[in-house]
Amino acid sequence: MSEPKFLYQRRAAFSDTDAMGVVHHANYLRFCEEARVAWMREVGLSNTHYPHSDKVLAVLHYQVWHLKPCTFDDLIKIYLQVHRMGLKIHFQYAIFKQVGSDEVRIAEAETLHIPVDKDLKPARPSQQLLTHLEKETWTETWLSNS
Amino acid sequence: MSEPKFLYQRRAAFSDTDAMGVVHHANYLRFCEEARVAWMREVGLSNTHYPHSDKVLAVLHYQVWHLKPCTFDDLIKIYLQVHRMGLKIHFQYAIFKQVGSDEVRIAEAETLHIPVDKDLKPARPSQQLLTHLEKETWTETWLSNS
Amino acid sequence: MSEPKFLYQRRAAFSDTDAMGVVHHANYLRFCEEARVAWMREVGLSNTHYPHSDKVLAVLHYQVWHLKPCTFDDLIKIYLQVHRMGLKIHFQYAIFKQVGSDEVRIAEAETLHIPVDKDLKPARPSQQLLTHLEKETWTETWLSNS
Amino acid sequence: MSEPKFLYQRRAAFSDTDAMGVVHHANYLRFCEEARVAWMREVGLSNTHYPHSDKVLAVLHYQVWHLKPCTFDDLIKIYLQVHRMGLKIHFQYAIFKQVGSDEVRIAEAETLHIPVDKDLKPARPSQQLLTHLEKETWTETWLSNS
Repeated sequence: MSEPKFLYQRRAAFSDTDAMGVVHHANYLRFCEEARVAWMREVGLSNTHYPHSDKVLAVLHYQVWHLKPCTFDDLIKIYLQVHRMGLKIHFQYAIFKQVGSDEVRIAEAETLHIPVDKDLKPARPSQQLLTHLEKETWTETWLSNS
Repeated sequence: MSEPKFLYQRRAAFSDTDAMGVVHHANYLRFCEEARVAWMREVGLSNTHYPHSDKVLAVLHYQVWHLKPCTFDDLIKIYLQVHRMGLKIHFQYAIFKQVGSDEVRIAEAETLHIPVDKDLKPARPSQQLLTHLEKETWTETWLSNS
Repeated sequence: MSEPKFLYQRRAAFSDTDAMGVVHHANYLRFCEEARVAWMREVGLSNTHYPHSDKVLAVLHYQVWHLKPCTFDDLIKIYLQVHRMGLKIHFQYAIFKQVGSDEVRIAEAETLHIPVDKDLKPARPSQQLLTHLEKETWTETWLSNS
Repeated sequence: MSEPKFLYQRRAAFSDTDAMGVVHHANYLRFCEEARVAWMREVGLSNTHYPHSDKVLAVLHYQVWHLKPCTFDDLIKIYLQVHRMGLKIHFQYAIFKQVGSDEVRIAEAETLHIPVDKDLKPARPSQQLLTHLEKETWTETWLSNS
């Protein structure tokens, strides 16, 4: 990766697995959400989001590419990048598992969001969020699939 | 069972299973909740509950006894009974899987609830709920574990 | 819709909702999986899939477009179509909620699968599955987003 | 607390909440499981459990008492204690949320387990687990509800 990206780490829980012995695909969306929340805390944007503000980033679209499975207790590492697309916010995620001293790429994902208020009406992103997004680096060819 | 009880049925989804190949225990709480909601609809009480009313039945306590596992695509049958305990509502659940023409008991559960309003403040059960509960039959020794 | 498609219906459970009062986006993947399983049962293909066979349809890619939210106890209706893409199986889903006598489109989705065996090795689709897929109708322009 | 107990911490995820704006009760079982897994790693018992051994601690019974709600992004702190009951393993959990500099007790829980092998047959606890459990402290009156 040419640019350092924000990293979120968590273990695969037993309840995340399914009868094939691997983490069930629907859980990757939960992990990406956890990574977004951790990123917002890290960069000081938590106060622009529910419950500290009346806004949330509603999900308009997402997609996930699965490259390899991961299993119970694997250390999952999610790198993310984010940029503004008009009034929408676009995240990409490169998802790895730790295997010995290697990071093995297991999935790629992207999510597209729009800020909405408590009544789910689209709202303009806060100035604080917009100002911060100008400082984030975005690598167009970062994911191999999108 | 000496008395007919309300029956809710659903299949075990693949996403409900875990790496042991069985339905993960935390999902039984979701199934019991689905059974309560189906019961409320069946007996005409949906209008006393969110979103048709501002009240929900908050959970104070629950317990589950696991007797046998169930697996993907098993037909799960949940019988329930309910009675009033002062201002609280008490449900019990006898949970079976269909195996051929037999119902095999796989779990027993109970949940204890109190009505709360949108601000999570305890509220008196609606008169409609109280009136209905007087008509429900309760068998004290229905579950073998409680 | 020009062609009749398989329909799977379920209620939105309370546990499916999140603090915005709507069904959390990650649950749509679970609903689509339930629809696939119901479709396999309907068309007589359950015996080609775990646990009746050692094969499952592993997920390679999925995407979901969210058009409108849905809330607790909404009746969710998922229409699906499926076709073969080489050795892969491609599903599309048109997802509605029932509002009075209307079906309101709330989401569209697609998932791409490859059969794998118990060791997660890619496997050829069973002849029974391939033979059946030739009988399924596929409408290229069925979803507005894909 | 008279004795220091193992502590596991995690944030409440957005996907953990429900339409009442609080963490859905079924998720507490997932959090307790995460705490057990973290405890096994901490005390060096991970190798006695799947996937490093063919054994898991199957759940026979659990119960949870809910005292107060918690909401999105709350820091959840789970203290646990564990002891042997014959061939069974018994865990108790005191669950808090961090509010400013205070820990507010939000729930108490207990789970009862039996080791099973990959075929879900009850198995004797490993000698390593038994030896370790003799070193754990157990406070009989630690929870106020059980």
